[in-house]
Amino acid sequence: MIHPHSLEPGVWHIQDPASQRLTWNKSPKSVLVIKKIRDASLLQPFKELCIYLMEENNMIVYVEKKVLEDPAIVSDENFGPVKKKFCTFREDYDDISNQIDFIICLGGDGTLLYASSLFQGSVPPVMAFHLGSLGFLTPFNFENFQSQVNQVIEGNAAVILRSRLKVRVVKEPRDKKTAIHNGLSENGLDTEGGKQAMQYQVLNEVVIDRGPSSYLSNVDVYLDGHLITTVQGDGVIVSTPTGSTAYAAAAGASMVHPNVPAIMVTPICPHSLSFRPIVVPAGVELKIMLSPEARNTAWVSFDGRKRQEIRHGDSISITTSCYPLPSICVCDPVSDWFESLAQCLHWNVRKKQAHFPEDEEDS
Amino acid sequence: MIHPHSLEPGVWHIQDPASQRLTWNKSPKSVLVIKKIRDASLLQPFKELCIYLMEENNMIVYVEKKVLEDPAIVSDENFGPVKKKFCTFREDYDDISNQIDFIICLGGDGTLLYASSLFQGSVPPVMAFHLGSLGFLTPFNFENFQSQVNQVIEGNAAVILRSRLKVRVVKEPRDKKTAIHNGLSENGLDTEGGKQAMQYQVLNEVVIDRGPSSYLSNVDVYLDGHLITTVQGDGVIVSTPTGSTAYAAAAGASMVHPNVPAIMVTPICPHSLSFRPIVVPAGVELKIMLSPEARNTAWVSFDGRKRQEIRHGDSISITTSCYPLPSICVCDPVSDWFESLAQCLHWNVRKKQAHFPEDEEDS
Amino acid sequence: MIHPHSLEPGVWHIQDPASQRLTWNKSPKSVLVIKKIRDASLLQPFKELCIYLMEENNMIVYVEKKVLEDPAIVSDENFGPVKKKFCTFREDYDDISNQIDFIICLGGDGTLLYASSLFQGSVPPVMAFHLGSLGFLTPFNFENFQSQVNQVIEGNAAVILRSRLKVRVVKEPRDKKTAIHNGLSENGLDTEGGKQAMQYQVLNEVVIDRGPSSYLSNVDVYLDGHLITTVQGDGVIVSTPTGSTAYAAAAGASMVHPNVPAIMVTPICPHSLSFRPIVVPAGVELKIMLSPEARNTAWVSFDGRKRQEIRHGDSISITTSCYPLPSICVCDPVSDWFESLAQCLHWNVRKKQAHFPEDEEDS
Amino acid sequence: MIHPHSLEPGVWHIQDPASQRLTWNKSPKSVLVIKKIRDASLLQPFKELCIYLMEENNMIVYVEKKVLEDPAIVSDENFGPVKKKFCTFREDYDDISNQIDFIICLGGDGTLLYASSLFQGSVPPVMAFHLGSLGFLTPFNFENFQSQVNQVIEGNAAVILRSRLKVRVVKEPRDKKTAIHNGLSENGLDTEGGKQAMQYQVLNEVVIDRGPSSYLSNVDVYLDGHLITTVQGDGVIVSTPTGSTAYAAAAGASMVHPNVPAIMVTPICPHSLSFRPIVVPAGVELKIMLSPEARNTAWVSFDGRKRQEIRHGDSISITTSCYPLPSICVCDPVSDWFESLAQCLHWNVRKKQAHFPEDEEDS
Repeated sequence: MIHPHSLEPGVWHIQDPASQRLTWNKSPKSVLVIKKIRDASLLQPFKELCIYLMEENNMIVYVEKKVLEDPAIVSDENFGPVKKKFCTFREDYDDISNQIDFIICLGGDGTLLYASSLFQGSVPPVMAFHLGSLGFLTPFNFENFQSQVNQVIEGNAAVILRSRLKVRVVKEPRDKKTAIHNGLSENGLDTEGGKQAMQYQVLNEVVIDRGPSSYLSNVDVYLDGHLITTVQGDGVIVSTPTGSTAYAAAAGASMVHPNVPAIMVTPICPHSLSFRPIVVPAGVELKIMLSPEARNTAWVSFDGRKRQEIRHGDSISITTSCYPLPSICVCDPVSDWFESLAQCLHWNVRKKQAHFPEDEEDS
Repeated sequence: MIHPHSLEPGVWHIQDPASQRLTWNKSPKSVLVIKKIRDASLLQPFKELCIYLMEENNMIVYVEKKVLEDPAIVSDENFGPVKKKFCTFREDYDDISNQIDFIICLGGDGTLLYASSLFQGSVPPVMAFHLGSLGFLTPFNFENFQSQVNQVIEGNAAVILRSRLKVRVVKEPRDKKTAIHNGLSENGLDTEGGKQAMQYQVLNEVVIDRGPSSYLSNVDVYLDGHLITTVQGDGVIVSTPTGSTAYAAAAGASMVHPNVPAIMVTPICPHSLSFRPIVVPAGVELKIMLSPEARNTAWVSFDGRKRQEIRHGDSISITTSCYPLPSICVCDPVSDWFESLAQCLHWNVRKKQAHFPEDEEDS
Repeated sequence: MIHPHSLEPGVWHIQDPASQRLTWNKSPKSVLVIKKIRDASLLQPFKELCIYLMEENNMIVYVEKKVLEDPAIVSDENFGPVKKKFCTFREDYDDISNQIDFIICLGGDGTLLYASSLFQGSVPPVMAFHLGSLGFLTPFNFENFQSQVNQVIEGNAAVILRSRLKVRVVKEPRDKKTAIHNGLSENGLDTEGGKQAMQYQVLNEVVIDRGPSSYLSNVDVYLDGHLITTVQGDGVIVSTPTGSTAYAAAAGASMVHPNVPAIMVTPICPHSLSFRPIVVPAGVELKIMLSPEARNTAWVSFDGRKRQEIRHGDSISITTSCYPLPSICVCDPVSDWFESLAQCLHWNVRKKQAHFPEDEEDS
Repeated sequence: MIHPHSLEPGVWHIQDPASQRLTWNKSPKSVLVIKKIRDASLLQPFKELCIYLMEENNMIVYVEKKVLEDPAIVSDENFGPVKKKFCTFREDYDDISNQIDFIICLGGDGTLLYASSLFQGSVPPVMAFHLGSLGFLTPFNFENFQSQVNQVIEGNAAVILRSRLKVRVVKEPRDKKTAIHNGLSENGLDTEGGKQAMQYQVLNEVVIDRGPSSYLSNVDVYLDGHLITTVQGDGVIVSTPTGSTAYAAAAGASMVHPNVPAIMVTPICPHSLSFRPIVVPAGVELKIMLSPEARNTAWVSFDGRKRQEIRHGDSISITTSCYPLPSICVCDPVSDWFESLAQCLHWNVRKKQAHFPEDEEDS
């Protein structure tokens, strides 16, 4: 006898998270190198990398104009001939989004967040090197960078698609001065029925907090149009799984693997002690507004940037972006993630910890 | 210019979690009614429900033999004529898995866990009533049960597919006596190379803990064959998102919506203070074994049942089951979930809490 | 044989926390009534209370000038004759600290914090009424207030001495404008070697946080002159046990009974996941400064008030104050505390909670 | 004007936690050396220490009989002459409590717990060496043990009095067989009105848990005779501040300095998400019993030892013991504690952690 009910079976086709690989339709020709500025320790690796890319691989190398304006680079005569070969661009002025085959980051996790912010649409694959200790987002060690870069150029690498959040901030119209003061004109300003709207792509998280106020913020969280809860506390973090190991972790969230299609809502020091971080499916739409009873405004920031005030009537709408960030793996998405957890959280695999009395044998 | 890289786009087709609905290919004819035993308050609702199903809807009603053997039912003369019409079965003896169109549960969340355990393969849709307070798994209120049952029979209901875990326990061969003592023969015992293997479907969680020992357990957690961490502590919970509001919540896990395709690994009182609950994609395979250095055995249970000892060499393999439990919604998967969270966690939507000093205005 | 070592035995004389009682050397004559302003629901209770105190008990009643300036009171003709009998004072202008025998608060926990701030030295005993739901600091129910006030006047009441923290903020000299802007002159400004110092008494907590910055604060915590840790995160809360149920609870602290002689140091969303709230003996001196490597300033507030910026070189010194706040109990310090915990945390003594599957019996 | 109220001022005499020092009335002559057994790495240090004590300091050295019966010691011919000079005793048989001037422990924190269990009354001062990594209870490094032992013999050392808990277990009479099976006769068995009572001194904690059951335990907690809450969960830990860094830490408790006169009550995975660890004054009496509605028994253990079942009607009474454990400090109680926290929790004083994105500067 066949079951008389039928259900969509699609949910149960579960993708193997280790299966995605980088594939070049034609050989990559242009690479964007992003370097944290004002960090002297990165200068030598940066030069070595660029020379290697240009001279050994004939790549077109893009850098930000301000990187070349760094006095340490300006004054370096040996680097002079190389410097001329760079293509440069300026953040917020020049659009390079269609000219880059892949990105190499030198710095910490913050450098990758910055790279993400440069691409509000589709993002080229990113290869992120850490120079000091392993970060959650920077799996590559700079030693032997040549062979690792070669592997990527040859298309011999696994990739993890890190989801991003598309965040749309809509503000009630106020006087023009305020609008300009708040920087509304700089980032995709448009108007809808007199309102001003901006849009951001975030890789880690949107944070809504109490800002300079001593008092709790009160924000209403809507899911697919329904009010689901009011968060009373220091604020709320809406993050991707990638962001689960950043600020959300400090606020008590679980560590979620970047391949889990989900959005995380994590309260910051919530007044209600039974409030817990929640994880919802990637397909929902969240909206956050000040509660009608809120006596203070709130503040919002996007991957730690573009901080701005949120007042009564303003809204923040958040969905999973269509433009994930493809992050190149050292090994594969699962191994890389656990490797970074183990390092960053001091997990000691196969090494007994002996601090607590419970694991001591009696004399 | 088209990007020279191409990535599998499949991940980004995100399913609307509210879209799945119950569809009957032909009208349902048979219903299994599961009632928590030894709970006098359920007797009257049980009788009303069964009479309604049989007499108003001409359904074939299955119940467990032990339900009808309850002295309160045996001695009820008015219920006599109805009693004869039931189809009965006994757990572990009679296979009814292909004879049931849908299930109605009366009781608490534990009753639904029990229903799940009866179906080690495909599970018919389940309609779960709470009699007292709303549970995480029992959304239906028994008042006006008739109209709600009618809606289900007419196929007018949303369904959420709650993922289950398939757990395979493989034990090193020991002497026969021990095997029988541990109940190995009762649940799908088979042998692989002399080893004994059992398999379970769990809806909430598998718990591996220190059992009666005072000392920490040491268990190794493998993911897709790689040792990812050793948990030193009271134990570890491997749960579905459905289980995230049960024991895992008490151990500090986030609340994960049942539509998120994930498996949760939550340590219980871990020795290492930086250990956090982790959430991995539904497609992985977890394996748990005693660590080589463990001085004590561990114990495992499945949705709180079938508790048994795990020794050196034994292994517990866990994957997402192909047989989810279809749970019928009162409204839709998202509304139902937040409704249960709000009730069970005392969330007060739109009701200011005034206990903490921070939200008081100065005089 | 007598032990050849001798140790100070004093520590082990443990005081019975329920033993302290209010004792009047002579009958109380003057009472300060503190009412949360701009709360219409308090008007009627306030009037009844004041009339009762003046007319039935011949007490001299002090109120703040601004309370009588409330339009709702100004316009109340019936209250006119009573109004003339009040003694009034203004915060920060008039010193009434030696003229008050006891205090009655009407409002929430915030009203008691405000009362505390009015007395930078010795504090008269406080009787705190909640009008709505029970607060942690406001044990008295306003119904039957007469008999309860009588008991206090007769000296028939237990008292708990709530420790306060003496906080001394010392700022590096900057230009005069800044100093005035920061309000340095208003609260006990003095100078030590060109530096500016202010002092505060807090009942709940001192909070040092990142203020309007998006980035983590880095603050160094010294104990008795030794650097014990650097807190990297949203900030740090230094609280009394009384404050353990306020902001510190939201940041993860334990609930500490107000009779425990201790100071609590609770990090807010610390970057390091193994950082825990710590509790140190009441006798220590804590000092907090920006870390040398901090790139942002921090902000400090005192029971949620007097918020100000802390820059490199500024210091915040914290010790247990010699001036605790004597809080009058409804019953005794232990019963009152557990009563408030049970109410505020929804503890259900002797009432089984039935939400989680674990406590369900199988069918 | 003098305040008309007077309150006991005693609470506000706050002892300086760093002030207590070891004082010998006459030179110490006898020392008990406790060595973790079955740990080969301790043999050489043990021999060196004993020879040093006997030959350089003419001390009488006590050891447990089982230590000398260790085959590795029996077979060591060089150690033969020394062995004859030991005084030996057997746990539970020989009372040495009045013959020991001080104790030296070699091993981990567990060794100190064992030392504590040997002294149910007054405890001589303890000097605890760690051989591997620093423990919370074992501050001394074995390198240069000679000079450190000399300092102690000369009375040149600070001491911290670590409070212990006196735990009295009273059991309902059952048949004699059960009583013997439960080991009631071995540890201070007495009878009160037919009931059987035992008493234990614990240094870290009493744990009441669900034992081998899969189901939640339900225990009632009474404070000074009043039911304050019912803990529904895996169990409850009643600990000293010394125990706050052991099992209680894993269950979410704050770290409490051993000089804080308090008792900690920490729920283990409580069902109610708003239940928090609580800290009460050292002077209270706690009593724990199974709740009337509990369907399973509970289990109790004392510093991880003497595990036994608790049934309906049995009670566990807990107060601060009059017999603290004097623990000799390397430096002083405050420095030693923070040193152990920093080591055991990987606190990095003055060393920036760079794993999280928030602390990265943008490129």
